[in-house]
Amino acid sequence: MTERQSSLSADSPVRVAVAGVGGYAGAELARLLLRHPRFVTRSPLFLSRAAATQIPVQGTLADLHPQMATSQDVEVSPFSWERMEEDGTEFLLLATPHDQSRAWVPKAMERGIRVIDLSGAWRLKEAGNQIAYRFDDADVELATRLQEEAVYGSPELHQDAIASARLIANPGCYATSIILALAPLIASGRIDLEHGIVCDAKSGVSGAGKTPTPGTHFMSAADNLSAYSVFGHRHSGELMEQLHLTEMQIQFTPHLLPIPRGILSTIYFRLKRPSDAETILGELREFYRDCPFVRVRKPGTLPQIQHVTRTNFCDLGLAVDRTGQRVVLVSCLDNLLKGAAGQAIQNLNLMCGWGEAEGLL
Amino acid sequence: MTERQSSLSADSPVRVAVAGVGGYAGAELARLLLRHPRFVTRSPLFLSRAAATQIPVQGTLADLHPQMATSQDVEVSPFSWERMEEDGTEFLLLATPHDQSRAWVPKAMERGIRVIDLSGAWRLKEAGNQIAYRFDDADVELATRLQEEAVYGSPELHQDAIASARLIANPGCYATSIILALAPLIASGRIDLEHGIVCDAKSGVSGAGKTPTPGTHFMSAADNLSAYSVFGHRHSGELMEQLHLTEMQIQFTPHLLPIPRGILSTIYFRLKRPSDAETILGELREFYRDCPFVRVRKPGTLPQIQHVTRTNFCDLGLAVDRTGQRVVLVSCLDNLLKGAAGQAIQNLNLMCGWGEAEGLL
Amino acid sequence: MTERQSSLSADSPVRVAVAGVGGYAGAELARLLLRHPRFVTRSPLFLSRAAATQIPVQGTLADLHPQMATSQDVEVSPFSWERMEEDGTEFLLLATPHDQSRAWVPKAMERGIRVIDLSGAWRLKEAGNQIAYRFDDADVELATRLQEEAVYGSPELHQDAIASARLIANPGCYATSIILALAPLIASGRIDLEHGIVCDAKSGVSGAGKTPTPGTHFMSAADNLSAYSVFGHRHSGELMEQLHLTEMQIQFTPHLLPIPRGILSTIYFRLKRPSDAETILGELREFYRDCPFVRVRKPGTLPQIQHVTRTNFCDLGLAVDRTGQRVVLVSCLDNLLKGAAGQAIQNLNLMCGWGEAEGLL
Amino acid sequence: MTERQSSLSADSPVRVAVAGVGGYAGAELARLLLRHPRFVTRSPLFLSRAAATQIPVQGTLADLHPQMATSQDVEVSPFSWERMEEDGTEFLLLATPHDQSRAWVPKAMERGIRVIDLSGAWRLKEAGNQIAYRFDDADVELATRLQEEAVYGSPELHQDAIASARLIANPGCYATSIILALAPLIASGRIDLEHGIVCDAKSGVSGAGKTPTPGTHFMSAADNLSAYSVFGHRHSGELMEQLHLTEMQIQFTPHLLPIPRGILSTIYFRLKRPSDAETILGELREFYRDCPFVRVRKPGTLPQIQHVTRTNFCDLGLAVDRTGQRVVLVSCLDNLLKGAAGQAIQNLNLMCGWGEAEGLL
Repeated sequence: MTERQSSLSADSPVRVAVAGVGGYAGAELARLLLRHPRFVTRSPLFLSRAAATQIPVQGTLADLHPQMATSQDVEVSPFSWERMEEDGTEFLLLATPHDQSRAWVPKAMERGIRVIDLSGAWRLKEAGNQIAYRFDDADVELATRLQEEAVYGSPELHQDAIASARLIANPGCYATSIILALAPLIASGRIDLEHGIVCDAKSGVSGAGKTPTPGTHFMSAADNLSAYSVFGHRHSGELMEQLHLTEMQIQFTPHLLPIPRGILSTIYFRLKRPSDAETILGELREFYRDCPFVRVRKPGTLPQIQHVTRTNFCDLGLAVDRTGQRVVLVSCLDNLLKGAAGQAIQNLNLMCGWGEAEGLL
Repeated sequence: MTERQSSLSADSPVRVAVAGVGGYAGAELARLLLRHPRFVTRSPLFLSRAAATQIPVQGTLADLHPQMATSQDVEVSPFSWERMEEDGTEFLLLATPHDQSRAWVPKAMERGIRVIDLSGAWRLKEAGNQIAYRFDDADVELATRLQEEAVYGSPELHQDAIASARLIANPGCYATSIILALAPLIASGRIDLEHGIVCDAKSGVSGAGKTPTPGTHFMSAADNLSAYSVFGHRHSGELMEQLHLTEMQIQFTPHLLPIPRGILSTIYFRLKRPSDAETILGELREFYRDCPFVRVRKPGTLPQIQHVTRTNFCDLGLAVDRTGQRVVLVSCLDNLLKGAAGQAIQNLNLMCGWGEAEGLL
Repeated sequence: MTERQSSLSADSPVRVAVAGVGGYAGAELARLLLRHPRFVTRSPLFLSRAAATQIPVQGTLADLHPQMATSQDVEVSPFSWERMEEDGTEFLLLATPHDQSRAWVPKAMERGIRVIDLSGAWRLKEAGNQIAYRFDDADVELATRLQEEAVYGSPELHQDAIASARLIANPGCYATSIILALAPLIASGRIDLEHGIVCDAKSGVSGAGKTPTPGTHFMSAADNLSAYSVFGHRHSGELMEQLHLTEMQIQFTPHLLPIPRGILSTIYFRLKRPSDAETILGELREFYRDCPFVRVRKPGTLPQIQHVTRTNFCDLGLAVDRTGQRVVLVSCLDNLLKGAAGQAIQNLNLMCGWGEAEGLL
Repeated sequence: MTERQSSLSADSPVRVAVAGVGGYAGAELARLLLRHPRFVTRSPLFLSRAAATQIPVQGTLADLHPQMATSQDVEVSPFSWERMEEDGTEFLLLATPHDQSRAWVPKAMERGIRVIDLSGAWRLKEAGNQIAYRFDDADVELATRLQEEAVYGSPELHQDAIASARLIANPGCYATSIILALAPLIASGRIDLEHGIVCDAKSGVSGAGKTPTPGTHFMSAADNLSAYSVFGHRHSGELMEQLHLTEMQIQFTPHLLPIPRGILSTIYFRLKRPSDAETILGELREFYRDCPFVRVRKPGTLPQIQHVTRTNFCDLGLAVDRTGQRVVLVSCLDNLLKGAAGQAIQNLNLMCGWGEAEGLL
């Protein structure tokens, strides 16, 4: 147990600010924090830059998201370091665009605030992968140092590092669905990596963000399916770095599904030695035996998006061909929860020394 | 048969230009004209102001609407009076915003071009109703004169006037569904007008136009239903003028449906004297006996949006309560066809002296 | 405080059985009870008749509803009076077809079990309205007596009677949305009842039940809208009885929406004396000032289905025409929660003397 | 030109019967035939076994499919060999279950009727693949002979054989989308077959048929995505036989999309020698240069389901990775048209010596 953790009484409330509550992931963060058993007595400060322009002077969460209207409304105000200082903010959750996160994180850490960043700003260690984000850092040296320090916030893989981290790079939604599916089998050496892994992923429209665009217009998205960013999606870097794979060992194609939320990834690979579904499922089950949010399906059944929507679960299931060589592994999660806000709260729980699943079931 | 009509040989092709093919209604106009039996040999000029900004220099219909891609692509170019003069354009179909239509129609008519305008620019005769559009006419006197001359393009009600018209104000989508349902029963004096008519109408998202907005974002429109413009929708004026009703005699509430296209209007009124479904349906059937695009359902069955989608039909059906006093009349059509482009082609057929249904079945 | 209530310590857990967890409303009941703060320590007995045929011998809730899979699975077994006796069941929640409820309720009450029935079996007092259900009672006299005793479970209207009731008839989903909208204004005498009230209601597909039928096939329901049961829906009786209206004073038309869940009712009526939106909204707000689950919108805004989906709220909003005579009142709720399982738990909370909103926010 | 073809005057109408117009593909066949320029003067006989049980004695197409209602209704009657004899039926189109097709085809051919069968009954030559259908043939020898004679109805690949065929096995919907994408590149030897091809295919719900099932219930299909029949779908046999591949060289995973119609197949493979998108697209364009229904997209753009819905087109597009080794090929079509009824009419056109695209644009 690190010093940082021990300074937190398991029972004391902590002061958590959120930036970006105008967006989908930020709204989910707000919703989860408001009903979190550890935050009931505290008025968390909700901040938002982009949303601020939509609120005349001061507004409430219910003005932004009418479905959140309850008797006592929660104030939302423009982002302010002063306000955080007054409130003694200990944690800052950023649901902001990656360039915004890249600018705010150094300033927050300077003030001793621990950060969970939901953008892609701090997920990648290798310069070749970072190119996808075109960072424009004010202090390149500092940014490089923080980049090195940042912990990839996958609680199933990096629980201890997360507990003591100052900066969490919360994983991408697509990346989470694929990494949780593959990590155990890559670790055990099951997969014929030379042959290459194919990840065909499909996501609901909330993954495309709240800004109205031709592609998110109901008329474009409904009754449709399309592939995009083939061989060029930013989450590819996360897959390679987290799974220790080369570019030729894994490929990933995202598709836009005509549903509000949820991701299903269909993953294709070959085994080094023939096996069967029961054995491989058993391996997954064993790997995740202490993980409350990974559910491994029985042989003969496969996950569906509906089974995970509005939950923090990642469901895994698979089939093996009759020769025992080829595997189709299906992984499902809710892109706004396990793929974003839910995983962020899971990380916050670990950082505070609380139960990993608190406020998430 | 008027002089204007007789100048057209029934067999000769006519030169038709369309403005606004970048939008939903304009695209349907293009599609219908391209497969219309009378236009096969001619290359109609497709023009578009808004769409022009999206096309580098010159483009094709398939660049705007990939679903329209065929072997020989059709050119789309910026709006140009010169181009129409070169081509000898006889008809101009406008699928443009109402302020654009208001500006272009006088210029087209000056050039002897007959116009079918799909916007609301010329539908209303009474100043009190026109207020909803806030016209900014360059020549108010001319605009007033053209306003007076414009024929409301409801082929089932104004067939003769349409045939010889120089300017057709193509009806609104909601208005068409309600006017076709009520016109026969108001004409016959069946309806207790003092009691008032309630029209609860629901439309698919294409009715909201192609520009991406928060309301047309998939996340807002899907899995949702909302009422809007209550007591304030512009189509109310059309209802009152075409049905000869006062504001207190009819009210109309539009709703946004989570489907791409289609309108269902549920219309509530009382009868002056008790009757039954069979009698009233018989009256509707008799009124529309020569109208190829109005289908009157049998007693006991009601129209559904699916039955009219991608057709030019307006389907009518109704139920009467056991006292014979109250009627629920259901009217369905496709807002982009019978509610816009399909009805425009129907009008064009009449203006050219061709069969009303040509190219529409 | 009645004797029945006082016998319950506010802190002691109660034993609650649910029948019908295979259906949509029953599954929501199970979900709500499993996370209810008062039931955490007890293993409630979940029973189901129809579902039993789908489970080989014994099964779990996760077998029926994979989205409910968690670490410790909850057993589901065929309906059994013996099992309830062993467990000391105090409350039975029935999410069963109305004929099943009609048969089981007398037997449950004989055993001293308090019942909340989600079907329409016990909602109507008047024989004329009951005809819609064609009951086939084994003991007509007993059924009539229970019918008389049954309390209509609308917590906003009958809180005290519910608290001490032995049998709750949980309201219909459509009926709840309309009754909550109209009850305050009928009570205050605002509405011109002689003119008649028109209720145009639209519901998601879950309202049609889980049994696959041609009408609930994705191909029939998607991209569609249809009216049904015009002048003949069973919920009409509830509206008349609860609002003290005659058949000619209220009419109600349900429609099937292409969304999974949610109801929006658009309600049309005239005022006895002209008024404005602010005044009438104020009246609604005052009427529901102590009701945690009715939200009254501000003037100029209207409820949408998205704002209430997956919540126990009923949202109300309205517009008044410029003459101050005609009102359009919009009411939204989630048909499976405030329209079924959520309202049932709200009733259970009242029957147990707990906070009305416990486990529902 | 064969004798069979020459006996048909290109102008004379032919007598075409359809069985199975109660289903989705059969309804599309009826719709296409009714508006086909070669069939306008003839009353084709529409027959249906399953649908017959839904029609009291005699019925019309509009009774089965209200969206098809027009002024003159088309009669639908139970399947009858006598009726076909009276009418002099020359072609029988079967949109029936595969066991029904297996039973009727020998009888039709005995009568000299040429058959296009839309089921899977006659598509496979190899016994190993046929096992998937479990045929129960009355005359095994005859069935085997017809099996041998049957022509796989892919007009882009087998045009000449189709023109003179007596029995067409109309291809499966998934199979068509994948075969059209891969056939040219397998023929040219581009693909590294040893590495294996992965086909991740997604289909709208109409592909699952009209019978209501738990899986086609709106509540199961909407807001969802699921994989099914992994390593076990019947179309796998077609892929192997038509593309001359072994089981290890191609694998295919179908998914159920929450849309009414359309298929998108994402196909992954490696090239034998590095190349680029332009080159491979050029090869596809060259292969299909005379094929009116295959559209090859430009480099940098990919097909979407919306672009082909309600058309007979199959759209192809692709991306190549920066090493030039890996290809992602996307293929889209409408499962009920190019994947079923449209392709059947295309085959009929060829069998009659007419233009391949007649009645299909």
